[in-house]
Amino acid sequence: MQDDLIQLAKKSRAASNKIARLTTGEKNNLLSAMAEQLLKQKESILKANAVDIESAKENKLSSAMLDRLLLTPERISGMAKALEEIVQLQDPVGEISDERIRPNGLKVEMMRIPLGVIAIIYEARPNVTSDAAGLCLKSGNAVILRGGSEAFNSNKAIVKALQDGLESCGVDAATITFVPTTDRQAMLELLKLDYYIDLVIPRGGEGLIHFVAENSRIPVIKHYKGICHLYVDKDADIEMAIKLLIDGKTSRPGVCNALETLLVHKEIAKTFLPRANEEMKKRGVEIRGCEKTKSILPDITSAKKEDFGFEFLDLIIAAKVVDNYDEAVAHIEEFGSNHTEVITTKNSETAQKFIRDINSSSVMVNASSRFADGGEMGLGAEIGISTTKLHAYGPMGLEALTTRKFVVVGDGQIRHKIE
Amino acid sequence: MQDDLIQLAKKSRAASNKIARLTTGEKNNLLSAMAEQLLKQKESILKANAVDIESAKENKLSSAMLDRLLLTPERISGMAKALEEIVQLQDPVGEISDERIRPNGLKVEMMRIPLGVIAIIYEARPNVTSDAAGLCLKSGNAVILRGGSEAFNSNKAIVKALQDGLESCGVDAATITFVPTTDRQAMLELLKLDYYIDLVIPRGGEGLIHFVAENSRIPVIKHYKGICHLYVDKDADIEMAIKLLIDGKTSRPGVCNALETLLVHKEIAKTFLPRANEEMKKRGVEIRGCEKTKSILPDITSAKKEDFGFEFLDLIIAAKVVDNYDEAVAHIEEFGSNHTEVITTKNSETAQKFIRDINSSSVMVNASSRFADGGEMGLGAEIGISTTKLHAYGPMGLEALTTRKFVVVGDGQIRHKIE
Repeated sequence: MQDDLIQLAKKSRAASNKIARLTTGEKNNLLSAMAEQLLKQKESILKANAVDIESAKENKLSSAMLDRLLLTPERISGMAKALEEIVQLQDPVGEISDERIRPNGLKVEMMRIPLGVIAIIYEARPNVTSDAAGLCLKSGNAVILRGGSEAFNSNKAIVKALQDGLESCGVDAATITFVPTTDRQAMLELLKLDYYIDLVIPRGGEGLIHFVAENSRIPVIKHYKGICHLYVDKDADIEMAIKLLIDGKTSRPGVCNALETLLVHKEIAKTFLPRANEEMKKRGVEIRGCEKTKSILPDITSAKKEDFGFEFLDLIIAAKVVDNYDEAVAHIEEFGSNHTEVITTKNSETAQKFIRDINSSSVMVNASSRFADGGEMGLGAEIGISTTKLHAYGPMGLEALTTRKFVVVGDGQIRHKIE
Repeated sequence: MQDDLIQLAKKSRAASNKIARLTTGEKNNLLSAMAEQLLKQKESILKANAVDIESAKENKLSSAMLDRLLLTPERISGMAKALEEIVQLQDPVGEISDERIRPNGLKVEMMRIPLGVIAIIYEARPNVTSDAAGLCLKSGNAVILRGGSEAFNSNKAIVKALQDGLESCGVDAATITFVPTTDRQAMLELLKLDYYIDLVIPRGGEGLIHFVAENSRIPVIKHYKGICHLYVDKDADIEMAIKLLIDGKTSRPGVCNALETLLVHKEIAKTFLPRANEEMKKRGVEIRGCEKTKSILPDITSAKKEDFGFEFLDLIIAAKVVDNYDEAVAHIEEFGSNHTEVITTKNSETAQKFIRDINSSSVMVNASSRFADGGEMGLGAEIGISTTKLHAYGPMGLEALTTRKFVVVGDGQIRHKIE
């Protein structure tokens, strides 16, 4: 197995050197050819998916899992459409920045280049296969895809279609590589191949992400949890704060940019909290409050210590009344997960201070935490969200799949005088 | 020990939150105060260094090692001066980029922020202690310093002076933390503290760097070797090529940006190689050539297979005649180390092609490989050179010690309509 994986990674590395040199037009043609093949091979992809769905039912997977796994003709068309949307995105490769002329006349500049080979390790959703492949390819990278065992047959069929698309344009199929096993031991071996693979992006539950992070010799970009805070400042507009709370907590509670904790300045708590409670009740949200919150809203649940810093991913929110701005910031520093924090205030000085003081990957003023998303922020499609600070921080678009090299052009400059 | 290290890392993390918020002026005052204390405590630093030098002599360290370890009044003044030079560098923190207004009116921008806590693991040279501390501090980071055992007393004395500088400005001494042991087991424990430490930069020999890379759960930015190539194209100016060869190979053969391999286009080999041989001989450089090189220069050594891709760090260079441009690029792809490659040619089309085709961290046209250096490239001081592509690639200045967060400012925007 180890030798097979090394062979596979070597081929991927060789393919990456070729894809890195294609023009934007050539890469866009590839994406269109891949989209075309997805549509052409719809039947065989659906057939493969039916096999996965059957095993999933036998294995009694939850209905939420089944829904993630299920492909329909519409979903496959959606995958093809997503590839066509990647065609529209600006190609970051080749972009020049930081030009300067040194006193000795050397011209120094930075040129954006692909990372090389990117491994994506993910779980049940088969659409990740084509989305991730499309984004890696547009940014000039080869990709190694290792999906979950539940979607094995679906993923294999999707990769076949994508590879047929590559080959129809005369491009090496190894540009998109499918790991033909979902064995954990094989994943461990793969994570050792830092000589061939430049980056690993795990996408899925915390268990998978921890496993990858702890066992990888290849750099990992990861996102564990989203403990997003809404801080309602003393100078907040109550109705705006209510809107941000409702949208942040209830529009899609199961996602990482949903709100998990509400911090309220004591001077506004008595007017804000009863309104908040009313709206949360109406929407079936349980508030777990600190003692001060309880003193204003006696009918709510008491928060336990572990409710703060917890990712409920459900219709539950922890609430705490803070004495002042600094206490709110200190709470976020202690319990936050570097995902997204929101302040709502009419005071622009306090807002500016919050922007400087909070170093989460997305810091928001008077906007819903639900906007922490590559598409919403204008990056185009998103390959993931990073909550660790190295390389990329926050929603990751195409640029996060590239790096910059130094280009130096001279006319014979040397560093030391030749004797 | 593990608990002690956790305590130390916790304090460093707490200090990092404070240093991140200082203004550029405040950080510059700190740097000046640190420089002042280095000069004030010169005597005690020299005394501590004498203890290290004595043990080093007892342990029969090489004279090169002894020279790296030795501090003199001038060298300490040099360290203080280097801190004052960091004062002059532009502070990257707070810089705004990529501003955009979304269709819904949200303003999205990116703000540069410190990484947090940076651990530097290094070997014999005590000046790294103050240089690294100064660069981390200027970029708003706390630093954990773990130097080599040879320089233990010197480093301890230097850190004391730097911390006295911090405290004279009322800043937490834990901003610059010294690991009070050079035990390997303790280093292993340190490398597990990814919850507190954001980045590890190992500086030293390949053994140390491999050890850190293989054992760290914290992201590592590293540089293994510099296998720098000079490709003399068929359209090269012979005398310029000779100058670049002499400077690249002989001006300081022991450093990572020195040339290790010479590739020569066959159409120019017969005129270039004899001139090159003459100049190399004059300077005591041994050429180890491929068969074709040998056929032109019969008196040189034959290259063994392992001479290509080898970092001699000495007055030796491997030489190969290539049939064409593509063979040169393929050779670099196979044997290069992503450090620095140089083409010399008068043909601007070939030069442009080389710039695009080679994805080493520094790609140079008609300039000496010895310019692959943060100072020479205009980054100001340099904390290291990265030959891996994640986060930073090539010489690393202050910007490489920072990341960017997303800042979103709205006036109450929400993502979903509230029912």
